[in-house]
Amino acid sequence: MRVVILAHDAFAGFGGKTARGVYFYSPHEIVGIIDRSNAGKNARDIFPKGRDVPIYAHISQVPEDYDALVIGVAPIGGKLPKEWREEVKIALKNGKMVISGLHDFISEDEEFKKIAEKSGAKIWDVRKPPKDLKVADGSGRDAPTVLVAGTDCSVGKMITAVEMHKEALRRGISSGFIATGQTGILVGADYGVVIDRVPGDFMAGTVEDMVNKVKDRDIIFVEGQGDLTHPAYSGVTLGILHGSYAKKIILAHDPTRKWHEGYEGYTILPLEKSIELYEELASPVSGGKVVGISIDGENMSDEEIMKFKEKVESELGLPAEDVLRFGAKKFFDRIF
Amino acid sequence: MRVVILAHDAFAGFGGKTARGVYFYSPHEIVGIIDRSNAGKNARDIFPKGRDVPIYAHISQVPEDYDALVIGVAPIGGKLPKEWREEVKIALKNGKMVISGLHDFISEDEEFKKIAEKSGAKIWDVRKPPKDLKVADGSGRDAPTVLVAGTDCSVGKMITAVEMHKEALRRGISSGFIATGQTGILVGADYGVVIDRVPGDFMAGTVEDMVNKVKDRDIIFVEGQGDLTHPAYSGVTLGILHGSYAKKIILAHDPTRKWHEGYEGYTILPLEKSIELYEELASPVSGGKVVGISIDGENMSDEEIMKFKEKVESELGLPAEDVLRFGAKKFFDRIF
Repeated sequence: MRVVILAHDAFAGFGGKTARGVYFYSPHEIVGIIDRSNAGKNARDIFPKGRDVPIYAHISQVPEDYDALVIGVAPIGGKLPKEWREEVKIALKNGKMVISGLHDFISEDEEFKKIAEKSGAKIWDVRKPPKDLKVADGSGRDAPTVLVAGTDCSVGKMITAVEMHKEALRRGISSGFIATGQTGILVGADYGVVIDRVPGDFMAGTVEDMVNKVKDRDIIFVEGQGDLTHPAYSGVTLGILHGSYAKKIILAHDPTRKWHEGYEGYTILPLEKSIELYEELASPVSGGKVVGISIDGENMSDEEIMKFKEKVESELGLPAEDVLRFGAKKFFDRIF
Repeated sequence: MRVVILAHDAFAGFGGKTARGVYFYSPHEIVGIIDRSNAGKNARDIFPKGRDVPIYAHISQVPEDYDALVIGVAPIGGKLPKEWREEVKIALKNGKMVISGLHDFISEDEEFKKIAEKSGAKIWDVRKPPKDLKVADGSGRDAPTVLVAGTDCSVGKMITAVEMHKEALRRGISSGFIATGQTGILVGADYGVVIDRVPGDFMAGTVEDMVNKVKDRDIIFVEGQGDLTHPAYSGVTLGILHGSYAKKIILAHDPTRKWHEGYEGYTILPLEKSIELYEELASPVSGGKVVGISIDGENMSDEEIMKFKEKVESELGLPAEDVLRFGAKKFFDRIF
């Protein structure tokens, strides 16, 4: 599939998590990025380690031989910005598949629906939960799960889970990857449901159900969400912790962040306190322990990352790594 | 309104929480209970402190001058038992309002919908979340909230919240009551949404939104749900803790329970550990502290309750009370 990513003003910065996730990790070919703030550049000008993809200002400039348009942004609340509607309509009119992780379903929008029906375009609302939802019943308790949790949103949980899963596969280990967010689903998880869209009672059960489907694997990486003390999303975090029956927990963390992103004044707990909380909450359900710290080093120099790794290793006795910058190999060795 | 409660095999025991809540706390007149296991008795034979209400074996035996049928059961998963469908159909055929707290919406069931359209019967699916859902934004942080949380499902959270709210009103305090479950909504909350039915991302925001609506009150009692280490429902528990911005927490607890109800092997944490967890999770969001233990003494003698109260007061320094058995007056005095 030849994929175009819509990510105005977001590809290089805040709100572009899905866009960058698909850009870096999608098994499909990326043939264009639409971002008016970076138009004319190549994606590689921004991310030297990334793929060679031209950036356009508007969908009308993209060569028409693509197959799917991915809406690559996840704003708070998940609503589609009005000015993007026109571009989505152009893709649908041209019969292209539209893939969306927004809270507002494209497939339930009367205008989009009509256009898609006429052109035969397909719509995939990645956040749409499955119809037959389950309440957790304890049946996932014995699964060999590793949860990649975190101390905030956007600290590299999905990336860490994918990198560790790929590293396991490279070593010939039978590994599974369960996604709980739109990007994880789009980059090739074994199973994935956007848990923040699932009604509260069914969050843990939906994760348990996915875990049970790959229970025969030697190891299962589960993507976590949010943080246990995030003022808006903590419930999703805890539902996934319990529904995954995490045996091991890798905690993703950005040492430069003081407050939860977008929630000034809502402090992120000290790392050792976060570890304690995750383990205490896991204790009566799965007994999971934190086994490593995945560093989101976006705002740190190599030297700062090295220093932080040493600190974590000496003070907490845990391996730490920025897997995006330094790869997952050594980190994997130290954990498993 | 003259209300009939449907609660086969459940009115006196497991699964009858909603039925009993409505029976004890509804501001409406209760004219009949349908429970084949207790047919022929009066509700007062089972609950001497309750209202004088006849119990019937089938809806066909209930005098027809009632206005509404409440489906008074909340089984795991929330589905309507097949054998009850016939009775719901009879109520709808006769033009009676049907009020349901089940996960499966009566109003979206094709058969029920057709019957209701023909007879003009109204359907109120109490669990149906509002259409315009909000993500928490921190705006509820200064609300004078008291969360009634718990160490398991069905330990008297709703009852405690209602009793404390009524006690506050009796004292002339401007008090608010926010419900998060179907029974609380049915017994006259200021605002109520069944949070376990709300998609994960919006749980805290929905509670915050309700709290903001009664922010001018002197005190706001918020009904909690589940428990922080419940394998299926913990996410809902935490979403409500954070969305309520609890300043004070009353913890409802059944000292005779070892495991989460219906989840054998899933241990309930020791009370002091539960208190610690609630406070740690609240700390960076609202700084809420546990200020009292509400005892679910269903399986305890008066003497056992007294002993437990003394233990809690001496070991944890907290007031404790079985408000259902001994009233909320003294408990209220000691907390506020």
